[in-house]
Amino acid sequence: MFEMSKPLILVTNDDGIVAPGIRALIEVMKEIGEVVVVAPDSPQSAMGHAITINNTLKLEQVHLDTDLEQEFSCSGTPVDCVKIAVNEILKRKPDLCVSGINHGSNSSINVIYSGTMSAAVEAGIEGIPAIGFSLLDYSWNADFSQIKTHIKQIASEVLKNGLPEGVILNVNFPKTELIKGIKICRQAKAYWEEEFDKRINPMGKEYYWLTGKFVNHDKGEDTDEWALAHDYISIVPVQFDLTAYHAIQQLNNWNL
Amino acid sequence: MFEMSKPLILVTNDDGIVAPGIRALIEVMKEIGEVVVVAPDSPQSAMGHAITINNTLKLEQVHLDTDLEQEFSCSGTPVDCVKIAVNEILKRKPDLCVSGINHGSNSSINVIYSGTMSAAVEAGIEGIPAIGFSLLDYSWNADFSQIKTHIKQIASEVLKNGLPEGVILNVNFPKTELIKGIKICRQAKAYWEEEFDKRINPMGKEYYWLTGKFVNHDKGEDTDEWALAHDYISIVPVQFDLTAYHAIQQLNNWNL
Repeated sequence: MFEMSKPLILVTNDDGIVAPGIRALIEVMKEIGEVVVVAPDSPQSAMGHAITINNTLKLEQVHLDTDLEQEFSCSGTPVDCVKIAVNEILKRKPDLCVSGINHGSNSSINVIYSGTMSAAVEAGIEGIPAIGFSLLDYSWNADFSQIKTHIKQIASEVLKNGLPEGVILNVNFPKTELIKGIKICRQAKAYWEEEFDKRINPMGKEYYWLTGKFVNHDKGEDTDEWALAHDYISIVPVQFDLTAYHAIQQLNNWNL
Repeated sequence: MFEMSKPLILVTNDDGIVAPGIRALIEVMKEIGEVVVVAPDSPQSAMGHAITINNTLKLEQVHLDTDLEQEFSCSGTPVDCVKIAVNEILKRKPDLCVSGINHGSNSSINVIYSGTMSAAVEAGIEGIPAIGFSLLDYSWNADFSQIKTHIKQIASEVLKNGLPEGVILNVNFPKTELIKGIKICRQAKAYWEEEFDKRINPMGKEYYWLTGKFVNHDKGEDTDEWALAHDYISIVPVQFDLTAYHAIQQLNNWNL
């Protein structure tokens, strides 16, 4: 039976429904609300805001957590998971959507490639307060225990205050023994320098692996990268109105 | 042989390298520059900013246009195409990257789901002036002939003026007999209302098709939707710094 006084919380991720990160996030959310899980049945990292329009979607009820009445794995992308949760599974709009905890950073420009953050952004587009959580540790066995109290605090604040219209929170946790605090940040102006690893397959044909290194020349102390490098939790408010308002006047002066 | 005085233009899309939209765009770009094509070998609509990190990439030189020395199909997403073009194929950073012409609208919130726009945004992240072009006609046999002069004009202006740092152009063309002009716009605050089409497969299991309808309550005359509905070309300057700067102060007042 649902206790209707509790907030309804949708949990998703991009590492897949069995990832330790989402299991830790579910544990925390159960302390503050009624939890429904809809998450990918396989890893969907770096899927960005992709949706499935040229293929069908499968939805499977699972019981990985015996406390939960509604837990589903979905064959689609993280954004598909949010769409199908809101439109097919939930009877009402959730009070909060949380995505993660991602195994690895989604700071700076990674927000654009991240399936974790795109799921949260999709919830934001649908008018649901939403937060993406990521820990700067790619290991499957990352230690999520010490960040749980911070996650509970941040989620509780969002439930209490709501979020400004069109704003989603991108929360990244440093990998550290001692977190110094929380900083509200801007997205650092960094990027990836690709290095394609070219190989030859057994049939003699070339193929490539995409690899790369993260380059950050933005030393601003108001950036997420600075905060994380100095053992602070970074919170970047993210928006999906991509209009570069400052450029409109300039373009109006062009000969178009 | 390359004429080095001509600007170097990278052309890509998300409908795939054989789509009439990209072939029309290549025709226009040949009039103003040295053209290199790297485009997906299959349709990649709605892939957003997805990249291929858990699979390999294939790159195949093709000769669909006998005027071109460098034309490649790639097994990856539109963003992969830009990354591999810049890092593996081109000897120098291109002077311009154009993506499209998309068969269908990429106005308003569609900018986030669009592979066409994500390819242009990726080029922008890499410091290349970039434009995404879309025509509001989903038909494979859409008539691209009358918008070619506008595309040439807009691309030429970008080559002449450059673009503000971190800004990409999202250009949408109305489906009309008579274009009234060009408007510099903001992204309309619209969204998709999903309607999942649930079916039963021959084995008796449920599956879903994602469908939906576009909902726009934003009647602002400065929006891309307004411009397109009134037979204007819309140009929205788009940015990849997603920070909601206006929300930072408010979040600093929270109890975090």
